[in-house]
Amino acid sequence: MSLPLHGSNPDYLYEALKILMPDEIIDFSVNLNPFGPPRMLKEKWSEWFSFIEDYPDPNGKELIQMISDKEGINEASIMLGNGGAELITLIASYFSGKHIGIIQPTFSEYEKVSKAYGCDVTYIKLQENDWNLDTGALSNQIASLDALFLCNPNNPTGIIYSNSQLIEILKICEKKRCYLVVDEAFYDFLEEEQSLSEFVTESNYLIIIRSLTKMYSIAGLRLGFLMANHQLVAKLKSIQPHWSVNALALEAGKEVLNEKEYVRKTKQFIHKERKRMMIELRGLGYHVSNSKVNFYLLKDPSLDNQLPLINYLLKRGIVPRHTENFPGLDGRWLRFAIRQKDENNVLMEALTQWKQES
Amino acid sequence: MSLPLHGSNPDYLYEALKILMPDEIIDFSVNLNPFGPPRMLKEKWSEWFSFIEDYPDPNGKELIQMISDKEGINEASIMLGNGGAELITLIASYFSGKHIGIIQPTFSEYEKVSKAYGCDVTYIKLQENDWNLDTGALSNQIASLDALFLCNPNNPTGIIYSNSQLIEILKICEKKRCYLVVDEAFYDFLEEEQSLSEFVTESNYLIIIRSLTKMYSIAGLRLGFLMANHQLVAKLKSIQPHWSVNALALEAGKEVLNEKEYVRKTKQFIHKERKRMMIELRGLGYHVSNSKVNFYLLKDPSLDNQLPLINYLLKRGIVPRHTENFPGLDGRWLRFAIRQKDENNVLMEALTQWKQES
Repeated sequence: MSLPLHGSNPDYLYEALKILMPDEIIDFSVNLNPFGPPRMLKEKWSEWFSFIEDYPDPNGKELIQMISDKEGINEASIMLGNGGAELITLIASYFSGKHIGIIQPTFSEYEKVSKAYGCDVTYIKLQENDWNLDTGALSNQIASLDALFLCNPNNPTGIIYSNSQLIEILKICEKKRCYLVVDEAFYDFLEEEQSLSEFVTESNYLIIIRSLTKMYSIAGLRLGFLMANHQLVAKLKSIQPHWSVNALALEAGKEVLNEKEYVRKTKQFIHKERKRMMIELRGLGYHVSNSKVNFYLLKDPSLDNQLPLINYLLKRGIVPRHTENFPGLDGRWLRFAIRQKDENNVLMEALTQWKQES
Repeated sequence: MSLPLHGSNPDYLYEALKILMPDEIIDFSVNLNPFGPPRMLKEKWSEWFSFIEDYPDPNGKELIQMISDKEGINEASIMLGNGGAELITLIASYFSGKHIGIIQPTFSEYEKVSKAYGCDVTYIKLQENDWNLDTGALSNQIASLDALFLCNPNNPTGIIYSNSQLIEILKICEKKRCYLVVDEAFYDFLEEEQSLSEFVTESNYLIIIRSLTKMYSIAGLRLGFLMANHQLVAKLKSIQPHWSVNALALEAGKEVLNEKEYVRKTKQFIHKERKRMMIELRGLGYHVSNSKVNFYLLKDPSLDNQLPLINYLLKRGIVPRHTENFPGLDGRWLRFAIRQKDENNVLMEALTQWKQES
């Protein structure tokens, strides 16, 4: 049995597990803003048809300027990407054949592309349930690495590591000449924003990746950006395909960066809903990760592998994200996005029934 | 003076030449279908808003099936790309550090990305004015190459090389274990379609690139595909970013492949208009390349470098494509797209006046 590598596109999961997909499903396997794209995008949509015809600005000048203003980072230290996935792939390509460390469990693309580009990959596995970082132990491991991938807040656990810990790790990396790649794809969902971005211009060993598709629910358009020392950015741009970011993504990007109220409301909603879900789910006897963002890990502690629960939910049209390809989770947990309240209630009901029936 | 690397985005050309861009311009520097996107895309556009939210199908299954049916090529031998430019970049990445030959003058991305990926690049320069292929001479040059880029019909000359010549070159490549990369980006504009695609499944040394953005005027969306032996396709897919083709490009791709009448009408129009332009332009004393597609090279033989003519046209809001970065042309020619009849007439008028004034 080979399960899909990622959430979303649930038909692949149903197919792999040979379960008939119901007409109505709720997809908890994809970590997007439950409110969908900001309304302004729908209002502009018909105007934007004209952008499909001609080539996009290969430099994405206007969007880069806006990001530069927002982040307080020099334009030369910013590059756009065809989704965070492209930026991760470019980093792996840049480090072809080198030694890459990955703090696990985490987003599976770091490993997949590092291996595709001939890198040696070392896992740094964190202890289950709290997944704390042990900076002392890390120090030795970093010595042999060329680059270290760290996702913060982490996908799939939803756990956030403190800036003080990350600064400590960055200092070790700089000393050992190892690049620290911090994927801040879910940064936008943090109530208390926290980032290493202020160190980007001065550090020669820091790369930060951000996504614009999660908070703004535009994963179909593909859009992310990267921040690093301008010399490294120039090198990464040189190996990036020309016109990599499509014209619609550029337009949408410029639009969503103004959506401050939408972001505020989303954070507030996610916070409230996450709190409610955690209390109820723990009350039902489930283990739930201490997430600070819009998804969480859940396990039924009476099961080792959660496959029976996956099957149970899929048949009811509820789509979880399996964790078979997260080293250190290995199928013992499921990941769920926080969706609209009524959708979360459907999940809660199914999980209540599962407990009663099992 | 550093001119932009590509046509389109004319503000960069005006900026580089320090010319004030008029309010109204006609962009002849970009080789897209002058009719714009097929009407059906506009009709579907509002429905397609829903595709911006969720992740695209990372396998592009439905579009691959359609291409497979149309081309008569097995699905495993086809991969999609975020525009032809991404596919070219993936090929350069695959051949990192190897020896690449490029038949010049041609599309500048082959060289740019090959160098970015550390390849040794050898130019095989064709003789100006007719740009004929000399397969005899090629044979020796291929011996030392790992891959050879050939664009057919060629950008920027518009010249087409015969299938019999290309088959001869493919045989030499197979014998010398050199990959032949044929970029058929403008194949769709040929009145008599001609492609090496039938050899793709059986040959271990053939890669064909196609674009869906030129004929269907959807360059803003980015969409292309590649055909090669399934083992090579699997390798190239492994180094491609996940979700590389956005959801709108996938939808548009599925739609445009049904647009047979639109393609027929376009070809007919381009043929007629090209014929008319060539007769008139040659009558005015210009040299014009023997193009078979939707663009052509032009030079005023009284000038060595055409920069004065570029300046003259830009001031009138007519945007040509310079050829400074096409080795073997080096600014001695200009490239023009064939646009709508009234637009071509504006160009013709300006070129008539230029002759009268100079």
